[in-house]
Amino acid sequence: MLTPAEADKLIAQHLPCLPIESLPIAQAAGAVLRENVYAERDQPPFDRVAMDGIALDSSAWRAGVRRLRIQGVQAAGDPPLTLEARDACIEVMTGAMLPHGCDAVVPVEQIETKDGVASIQSDVVEPWQNVHRRGSDSRQGALLLSAGTRLSPPEIAIAASAGMPRIRVSGQPAVVVVSSGNELVEPGEPILPHQVRRSNAYAVVAALRRHGFQRVADDHVPDDAAVIRSRLEFHLHTHDVLILSGGVSMGRFDLIPKVLEELGVRVVFHKIAQRPGKPLWFGVSQGGPAVFALPGNPVSTLVCLARYVVPALFAAMGQKPTPPEKIALADAATVSAPLTTFLPVRLETDDWGRAWAIPCPTNGSGDFTSLAGTHGFVELPPGPNTYPKGFVTRLHRW
Amino acid sequence: MLTPAEADKLIAQHLPCLPIESLPIAQAAGAVLRENVYAERDQPPFDRVAMDGIALDSSAWRAGVRRLRIQGVQAAGDPPLTLEARDACIEVMTGAMLPHGCDAVVPVEQIETKDGVASIQSDVVEPWQNVHRRGSDSRQGALLLSAGTRLSPPEIAIAASAGMPRIRVSGQPAVVVVSSGNELVEPGEPILPHQVRRSNAYAVVAALRRHGFQRVADDHVPDDAAVIRSRLEFHLHTHDVLILSGGVSMGRFDLIPKVLEELGVRVVFHKIAQRPGKPLWFGVSQGGPAVFALPGNPVSTLVCLARYVVPALFAAMGQKPTPPEKIALADAATVSAPLTTFLPVRLETDDWGRAWAIPCPTNGSGDFTSLAGTHGFVELPPGPNTYPKGFVTRLHRW
Repeated sequence: MLTPAEADKLIAQHLPCLPIESLPIAQAAGAVLRENVYAERDQPPFDRVAMDGIALDSSAWRAGVRRLRIQGVQAAGDPPLTLEARDACIEVMTGAMLPHGCDAVVPVEQIETKDGVASIQSDVVEPWQNVHRRGSDSRQGALLLSAGTRLSPPEIAIAASAGMPRIRVSGQPAVVVVSSGNELVEPGEPILPHQVRRSNAYAVVAALRRHGFQRVADDHVPDDAAVIRSRLEFHLHTHDVLILSGGVSMGRFDLIPKVLEELGVRVVFHKIAQRPGKPLWFGVSQGGPAVFALPGNPVSTLVCLARYVVPALFAAMGQKPTPPEKIALADAATVSAPLTTFLPVRLETDDWGRAWAIPCPTNGSGDFTSLAGTHGFVELPPGPNTYPKGFVTRLHRW
Repeated sequence: MLTPAEADKLIAQHLPCLPIESLPIAQAAGAVLRENVYAERDQPPFDRVAMDGIALDSSAWRAGVRRLRIQGVQAAGDPPLTLEARDACIEVMTGAMLPHGCDAVVPVEQIETKDGVASIQSDVVEPWQNVHRRGSDSRQGALLLSAGTRLSPPEIAIAASAGMPRIRVSGQPAVVVVSSGNELVEPGEPILPHQVRRSNAYAVVAALRRHGFQRVADDHVPDDAAVIRSRLEFHLHTHDVLILSGGVSMGRFDLIPKVLEELGVRVVFHKIAQRPGKPLWFGVSQGGPAVFALPGNPVSTLVCLARYVVPALFAAMGQKPTPPEKIALADAATVSAPLTTFLPVRLETDDWGRAWAIPCPTNGSGDFTSLAGTHGFVELPPGPNTYPKGFVTRLHRW
């Protein structure tokens, strides 16, 4: 059976590559950049006033001038004035251009103004004080952001400041979440004792939306080969990624792998040496779509989604690989099976700034009520082994 | 001047309380729960088959029976069959009800089937093996989720499994982001040397969306008191929270605080002893809306948003307070001013699972190109002081 790392490699080799889209900058938050962003101009693009106050020629101050006639006002967004005389000054606002002939700003707290004259109260006025000089942050043409970056708020500000009204990013994958199983009944519908609530699909959709994926549809199929075939055929024609929940273990009614292969979806792997989530199935269609068939119990579903599917979606969008997040166990954990084990955890930070993963074991993989309040899960190497408090391993967040 | 902690208290005292909404469970991801969720039924609601295989009466196995006639098939979602005889068995699927008269499941890998008879290959069959017993996860009526919880994917699964088609959560605040300043020009529009790109509003909107806020509008006002007054009056009537970017420092053209007070917005505080972001202004209107006026330079804008505004929005939605995230500095950092200092950082995890905050100082608070790739900022106590490598303090993520 495959290890999780081998499964990662196979998924990476078979991923579809998502096309590039041009999006308005206001809608690009969380997207993966697919072009480089270069500085439109020097940054700041002019010598910029960094404090409200007066702009002056500092050589006048060095020559002993302490009282300066206020010649005018230079507001942010106005073209620059020109200082008329060395014993004059210009009232300036934060963000304004430094007026021609000036090389320093004295803050409003350090002057007294009376009858159109500003008296300087400060002990020193140095050239370029309180001036954010042109090009001091970056030069025109400098590489500001490179392709593969995920756009967080600072990167959005940077792209806007580079003058880009639209930006080339990866299109979001069109994903459909398909649950299966005659036993599932929608929340709110009458339910018989032998039936269970349809809950996995909601959790999968929620997780995808929390990660910023917006193009997420949702379907349900009964345990009926003809219906499964026709719905899956439709979804394969209309989506980039299918996420199936349930129907991939070894029972007679687990029809989905068979139907998928009949539909031309080639199995890349079925089963990984892990617990929970062993029966994970992954295949690719000739037309391109990738299919993840997740085991049907709720903990397995969420674990496989976070461990394999979400990273695969970001990779398909061209995101640069990010180093795995690691964390130390707050308590010893025992792994009895010779399988990689995923253990749900809650995170806490101690007074020394160290994050700890507090194990929140579930009562079998069908138990998900104990997942409330957990932040994700850690990945423990195959046992039998007991990993002590302080053991460091990979953390995956929901 | 206020400390950041004093500002936190004042904001908390003046927050509007957002109303409760009932949302379809499929749309509640990321929302803050405003009711308790109790178990609809025992969980599992019946003795549930945990493996594909055969169900049998384990007392028959103890009595030496190893070959069992396959009486029928019990699929998930079907009402339970009844075992006809102790030397019979029933084929069962994962998720199915355990048939009446059975108390154990032998997995398909441990049996051989021929001519309608299953031969058991395993060395032991124990009562209740591979059965997830009714009520073993939780009992009907048990408290599963409490009000104030933010709904992550596991909590969505739990609420769906509790049979809730709709769920009572906090309504999202209607937020408007208003930038100001004659110097701002939209990306893509022709720009003159003394003008700058409008970028802050995009970053604020991006940050709000990344935190899951969907009801976010966007406006821009010039430095004109009449226009500012009429736009702000409109926004105060139509939104829960106003976030103003720019226009709150001490200059003559910083009209916004004055106009806000004329419109009946009472100032709660103006200025916090911090860098960057000192001129932060906070007020509340008689009708209820809260107004944050953020300093206009890009780093200050993003810092004040993450440090004060986003936590305030979650508190207004009724989220239970979460303990502050803490982290250790990866390098010494010097704070020269007697002001709380916010230092942008990039996070890295070392091989021992310890996260470190790598300082990414900006070149003055107008420099935001160096924010690319940062994850947030740490909060350093007022100086003058040098904080050594390993110093632990609060982390705020963008």
